[in-house]
Amino acid sequence: MSRIVAMRTHDVRFPTSVLLDGSDAMNPDPDYSAAYVRLVTDGGEEGHGFVFTIGRGNDVQVAAIRALEPHLRGLPLDDLGEAWRRLVHDSQLRWLGPEKGVMHMAIGAVLTALWDLRAKRAGLPLWRLLSTMEPEEIVDTVDFRYLTDALTRDEAMDLLRRPGRQDRIDQLMRTGYPAYTTTPGWLGYDDAKLDRLCREAVADGFTQIKLKVGGDLEDDRRRLAIARAAVGPDFKIAVDANQRWDVPQAIEWIAALGDPHLAWIEEPTSPDDVLGHQAIRRAISIPVATGEHMTGRVMAKQFLQAQALDVLQIDATRVAGVNENIAMLLLAAKFGVRVCPHAGGVGLCEAVQHLAMFDFVAVSGTREDRYIEYVDHLHEHFVAPVVVENGNYLAPAVPGAGTEMRPESIREYEK
Amino acid sequence: MSRIVAMRTHDVRFPTSVLLDGSDAMNPDPDYSAAYVRLVTDGGEEGHGFVFTIGRGNDVQVAAIRALEPHLRGLPLDDLGEAWRRLVHDSQLRWLGPEKGVMHMAIGAVLTALWDLRAKRAGLPLWRLLSTMEPEEIVDTVDFRYLTDALTRDEAMDLLRRPGRQDRIDQLMRTGYPAYTTTPGWLGYDDAKLDRLCREAVADGFTQIKLKVGGDLEDDRRRLAIARAAVGPDFKIAVDANQRWDVPQAIEWIAALGDPHLAWIEEPTSPDDVLGHQAIRRAISIPVATGEHMTGRVMAKQFLQAQALDVLQIDATRVAGVNENIAMLLLAAKFGVRVCPHAGGVGLCEAVQHLAMFDFVAVSGTREDRYIEYVDHLHEHFVAPVVVENGNYLAPAVPGAGTEMRPESIREYEK
Repeated sequence: MSRIVAMRTHDVRFPTSVLLDGSDAMNPDPDYSAAYVRLVTDGGEEGHGFVFTIGRGNDVQVAAIRALEPHLRGLPLDDLGEAWRRLVHDSQLRWLGPEKGVMHMAIGAVLTALWDLRAKRAGLPLWRLLSTMEPEEIVDTVDFRYLTDALTRDEAMDLLRRPGRQDRIDQLMRTGYPAYTTTPGWLGYDDAKLDRLCREAVADGFTQIKLKVGGDLEDDRRRLAIARAAVGPDFKIAVDANQRWDVPQAIEWIAALGDPHLAWIEEPTSPDDVLGHQAIRRAISIPVATGEHMTGRVMAKQFLQAQALDVLQIDATRVAGVNENIAMLLLAAKFGVRVCPHAGGVGLCEAVQHLAMFDFVAVSGTREDRYIEYVDHLHEHFVAPVVVENGNYLAPAVPGAGTEMRPESIREYEK
Repeated sequence: MSRIVAMRTHDVRFPTSVLLDGSDAMNPDPDYSAAYVRLVTDGGEEGHGFVFTIGRGNDVQVAAIRALEPHLRGLPLDDLGEAWRRLVHDSQLRWLGPEKGVMHMAIGAVLTALWDLRAKRAGLPLWRLLSTMEPEEIVDTVDFRYLTDALTRDEAMDLLRRPGRQDRIDQLMRTGYPAYTTTPGWLGYDDAKLDRLCREAVADGFTQIKLKVGGDLEDDRRRLAIARAAVGPDFKIAVDANQRWDVPQAIEWIAALGDPHLAWIEEPTSPDDVLGHQAIRRAISIPVATGEHMTGRVMAKQFLQAQALDVLQIDATRVAGVNENIAMLLLAAKFGVRVCPHAGGVGLCEAVQHLAMFDFVAVSGTREDRYIEYVDHLHEHFVAPVVVENGNYLAPAVPGAGTEMRPESIREYEK
């Protein structure tokens, strides 16, 4: 077996704040960034991963990735469940979380790089690699610690024995996976730009958009009216408050928006507030979505146990890599909850599409009413940029996890 | 007004793993460490703070503290509520949490250093400074965002208007605050050492000890029997599983320990698992304690709302400083739950005693059945080491927050 012999890290920052792409009620001026890691084997192969950040602190995230270097030489490249355990359960590093925040996301970047390496070795895009793995191989990558009151290894095996994988692979190859677009909805855009981008979304074949809300109620109502007029009555509109509200305020504000047909309200309050989301969900009639800031499987478990969400929005770089997202997909399937991944940022679309497609093929078995978020920026920096056509992500064919950035982009934007 | 003009950071590590002090079921070989920060004003005054870690990753924690440097010059030294908001709500750094893990603890170290500076300027130990502040001044330091469904500013003001502060200050000056000791209970100690240290705890005037459990059931039962024989039938014994178990396993293991008189079971499962603790608490008859890994006020709120704990164990360096611990003390008082602070490590006893004493004087108004954890190591490295006599922390008299390490110790143990 070969092994990892080198780790290269890069602090990559794109100056997105200049154009107010990505501006919302909590994030007025993000500079989309990546704490980027390349793992190199003794055979010269590479695996790439990263943590998405929005600017300041990207250096801290790089430092956290570097702190994992002593583990690298010993990591078993053929047993990524064991790799998870060694990294996540390092008894000293664990103190810095456990399983949350900077250190956990750093572990996620390294694990994703290992999956990228593995998929490249197999000559398969990650979604296909995962879709060809036996149920037992898949559950071996999952850490069931702290989950067994909600999901056991045996239950996960049963979920993964769903028949018809090849059929669903064929469907994906033909029609891809539905996307929704957040491109029109940033708070920093004026009304004319909002109107234009909404119309473009319809013309481009999307069936759902998402608008940012929570800055000012009258602005929200006006912008919703503009969007609704632009997209027509049957088009889906989701809204996203980016954690702006307290629980009582969320309930009031959502009622005051006055639109009972919204596709969902996203991040109405603190992403850690399971009971808060539960209270909000009980008080309102539109679906509740959250997940892009969910620290991992223990929080996912509770949100599901508490029936605190309708839509789980997994994120490719918030949790400890592919392993933990598999755990979260299995939990969602067990509880019968929809998964609509968070994306955008830097490379999140490229990475998370693999997880959604794997979910369709091998876990939930359905794409119904499910969408991967799409934002049309920064894709040009990736070796295998996503292809979205007629409102669908086309199934990626390039081997790997989608996480490899072009070397020229790294050079140009490295801090 | 003066301002902060310099930040000095130090990566301080004590080689505690050699003696297995601090060994438990999840932390077999900790090297107790501090990511240490000194803030210097233009007048040459200093405020000191730190994050406790257990070794690896202490450098990551220092990097996170350094990432806060651009905020320092502008921080209002007379308005620490505003200082909290600027640091915790930095829209870009927030992405790395929010409000949890490495970045949040770094903010805690800086805020604690600001409180240390303020107490030194006032010529008071922190507990006395806090105990002399008006209710309005105190609540102004608290961020009620995400709390208002459980605790409003007005409710907090009412709690803080409790009469009799001076009386309780006098009581503290006379008799101090009860301590319990974890010194006997580390898993790395052999039975003879356990027996000897238990007897010493009784002789030293303590009324409660704590044993680590969760490694091996038969070992736990044997060690509990040794401890019980050593301390006698009326002495309190708490046990601490350090997050070792899944929920069903915790319930079984605790029953199998076979002692219905245990003072509490601490950290039976993941510290993030509100619903798991709730389930365990419902299934067992001994009190449930947790908090040393609780990320902050949003989790504290939920543990209290869910009636998932009997004892809240605040920690001086896990959350965003004094401000957030005040929020957590107010929440506990609102819900009528005991606070028994976590301590030990490096300087945690020195720091957290101030918060417990403030709680007694101004928030809960009681010391009944409450204890600050005590472990007798590494105190000699602090300028004002704790004084524990006859099982009680004596009220500290030295101005500051207790967080100042001796310069010789920093020099000797800086990495």
